[in-house]
Amino acid sequence: MKTTNVKTLKVALLGCGNVGSQVARILLEDADALAARTGARLELSGIAVRTIDAPRGAELPRELFTTDAAALVKSADIVIELLGGIEPARTLILSAIEHGACVVTGNKALLAADGPTLYEKADAAGVQLSYEAAVAGAVPILRPIRDSLAGDKITRVLGIVNGTTNFILDQMDSTGAQFDDALKEAQRLGYAEADPTADVEGHDAAAKAAILASLSFHTRFALENVHCQGISSVTAADIAAAKDAGFVIKLLAIAEKLSVSAADGGTEGVCVRVHPTLLPREHPLATVRGAFNAVFIEAESAGELMFYGQGAGGTPTASAVLGDVVSAARRLVLGGPGRTETTTGHVPALGIDAVRTSYCVGLDVADQPGVLARIAQLFAENRVSIETMRQTIHREVPGVTPGSAELRIVTHLASEAALAATVQAITGLDIVNSVTSVLRVEGV
Amino acid sequence: MKTTNVKTLKVALLGCGNVGSQVARILLEDADALAARTGARLELSGIAVRTIDAPRGAELPRELFTTDAAALVKSADIVIELLGGIEPARTLILSAIEHGACVVTGNKALLAADGPTLYEKADAAGVQLSYEAAVAGAVPILRPIRDSLAGDKITRVLGIVNGTTNFILDQMDSTGAQFDDALKEAQRLGYAEADPTADVEGHDAAAKAAILASLSFHTRFALENVHCQGISSVTAADIAAAKDAGFVIKLLAIAEKLSVSAADGGTEGVCVRVHPTLLPREHPLATVRGAFNAVFIEAESAGELMFYGQGAGGTPTASAVLGDVVSAARRLVLGGPGRTETTTGHVPALGIDAVRTSYCVGLDVADQPGVLARIAQLFAENRVSIETMRQTIHREVPGVTPGSAELRIVTHLASEAALAATVQAITGLDIVNSVTSVLRVEGV
Repeated sequence: MKTTNVKTLKVALLGCGNVGSQVARILLEDADALAARTGARLELSGIAVRTIDAPRGAELPRELFTTDAAALVKSADIVIELLGGIEPARTLILSAIEHGACVVTGNKALLAADGPTLYEKADAAGVQLSYEAAVAGAVPILRPIRDSLAGDKITRVLGIVNGTTNFILDQMDSTGAQFDDALKEAQRLGYAEADPTADVEGHDAAAKAAILASLSFHTRFALENVHCQGISSVTAADIAAAKDAGFVIKLLAIAEKLSVSAADGGTEGVCVRVHPTLLPREHPLATVRGAFNAVFIEAESAGELMFYGQGAGGTPTASAVLGDVVSAARRLVLGGPGRTETTTGHVPALGIDAVRTSYCVGLDVADQPGVLARIAQLFAENRVSIETMRQTIHREVPGVTPGSAELRIVTHLASEAALAATVQAITGLDIVNSVTSVLRVEGV
Repeated sequence: MKTTNVKTLKVALLGCGNVGSQVARILLEDADALAARTGARLELSGIAVRTIDAPRGAELPRELFTTDAAALVKSADIVIELLGGIEPARTLILSAIEHGACVVTGNKALLAADGPTLYEKADAAGVQLSYEAAVAGAVPILRPIRDSLAGDKITRVLGIVNGTTNFILDQMDSTGAQFDDALKEAQRLGYAEADPTADVEGHDAAAKAAILASLSFHTRFALENVHCQGISSVTAADIAAAKDAGFVIKLLAIAEKLSVSAADGGTEGVCVRVHPTLLPREHPLATVRGAFNAVFIEAESAGELMFYGQGAGGTPTASAVLGDVVSAARRLVLGGPGRTETTTGHVPALGIDAVRTSYCVGLDVADQPGVLARIAQLFAENRVSIETMRQTIHREVPGVTPGSAELRIVTHLASEAALAATVQAITGLDIVNSVTSVLRVEGV
């Protein structure tokens, strides 16, 4: 390898957990290849951690570690932030930008909470802020959206962006397990944390949905713009009924362009939402198994695209981080400022009310004549049109009223409001023991 | 929209066929959105064509058309070359580069034939040469490989990169049709050209394989480094037998890192090849239907990735072209030279002999005792290990010797040379009427 006339760029790493330790290992092991690809030697100048002697996922030289993150940041050309959480990550990133460093981060919580501040500061300072690792781990999805599809108009993004919930739903689908048992299995295998709230309640997916929507529609969407529902109330019965009908249940992050009818104001905008969703089993996203992630995009010119790969894990996520590091280094070598995103779309963020989907409604009803007709009548009164209705008579199913029947109704497109009114009306019927589930259907 | 302080960039379009007419339409229709995304107005300064009054795929202002491509190129900031073929495309691109314009092209034949000259001239002039549309149409695959995976080490690329052949094979698989009939159907539906040679003989896929391999392994691979075999000899019987055994036959473009054994020199290198391939039906690429394209990548850190979408068509391909145009415009607005690719990998190109795969060998043999043993013996003598052997007795199958049997043998990993020696030895046996097919198996 030629080493003459090669610049050296100082790379500061903040955080040395699962991902950070792999990033450090690769920076050291593959230094020659990275230098060849960027035109600069990427010198790992230090690794900021809370405790120097904590166990790490890779063997790294002890002298690289420091507890003084603030000092490390000030002398770096490229700062990699893998601390997670809001502080001190936010302050350190702002300090890096002020000192003219390019920043690479995988911190979706920070980006969803305070991204706009960071993007503006980076743009003003002419440094590159990139965060491919924040969404869908190793899957290159943000750069394709930002750059490759920049001449197209994205109309819809559907993503499986949380491996934990996909693993749990996949387990439930393939083994018939209940949610609690599938969660325990995921925890045992290391796919779910001891406190799984952020994953199973959809908060992690919601942060990623906000980032995907912002890049796809050239408009900043904040976490509070995302309608969010998790998977903890999805039952084995929901999954089994979906399976019977040719569907699979996935937790999807969805951002789509919608027009509200003229009667309701005629706005065009984007609704961003995360919820468990029925998908036809032949949809490309339906085959995404285990802890894998995938993002399905519909664009006016490109049509349907899908991006698939590992959504988590130290080494896969390190791949995304290092892609951003190489990109930052190439810019620093070749000159010219970076650009993070364009936000000139000015698309209104629409509430979940603007969305019309099919629904799958599960009911526990009395097993007696006339029930179907009365329920169908209520749907009609609320102008929700029924596509299919399936009834299963229960003999002795635990937790279900004896002498009752299970009814699964799939509707045509309906608004959240019309569906909610229907469900409320049904709940008041004497022949209905309970509404066991209300799930949206996509991809039909 | 703010229009103050907005630069104007002149965009010259060369060629106005399927893709070009859509590119022109979008440049005109979406001028405001593109200006917002790039910070510059993209002014379509002219469209160079051979015949001004030929019919076009979109309604475009007549005054934009010119037959003087050479003059148009000289005044442009961005030149979009969609002429196809080697000349005059090559001369016009070189002229654009000399005049300091960024170039966007979808011309895989030219890139595979003379890419290195173009890349070097562009690098030397500090202009951006991009060609996302050259491989897999609308699917963003080159930018993810070049940028997102730049910090990783790609070990293997498997691509369905030719929609025509995928459509034909898919038809054969789903309807049981013979190759000739499926080709006619593809021609009737516009998926295959009147002269289908470039597609069905794998030449188009080979050019794309060379481009994918060059970017993935940071080393220039030329068309002559690509081992190429088309699908015209794949029969309905091959497809049916593959289906029975749980496989689907796809034309794959494959580039993979290999080590030749120490006995044979111990080289590490990359073999690039295009051939019909048996894939397990549960492989992600097996579900790519019709004229869709997909590229499956294995990288050391990222693991398995897949990119999927429309591989051809005017509008989808225009999406890829415009992504490159926006990227070039952003660079011109923000300053700083572009960079096309790095070619510092210096990986040797290996011949097909270096590849060890499983094979599926079809034989028409005499239906008599001892045949299986004699054939198995020959495989063993040539040190090709057999995984499975299936025999079907033929009653009255057209084109097959009466009183004969069909034998399908799937081997363990074997070299091309060992397999060829085996096939030669088998051909000499009196009990063998013919070797009906030899196909490689991947993805197991």
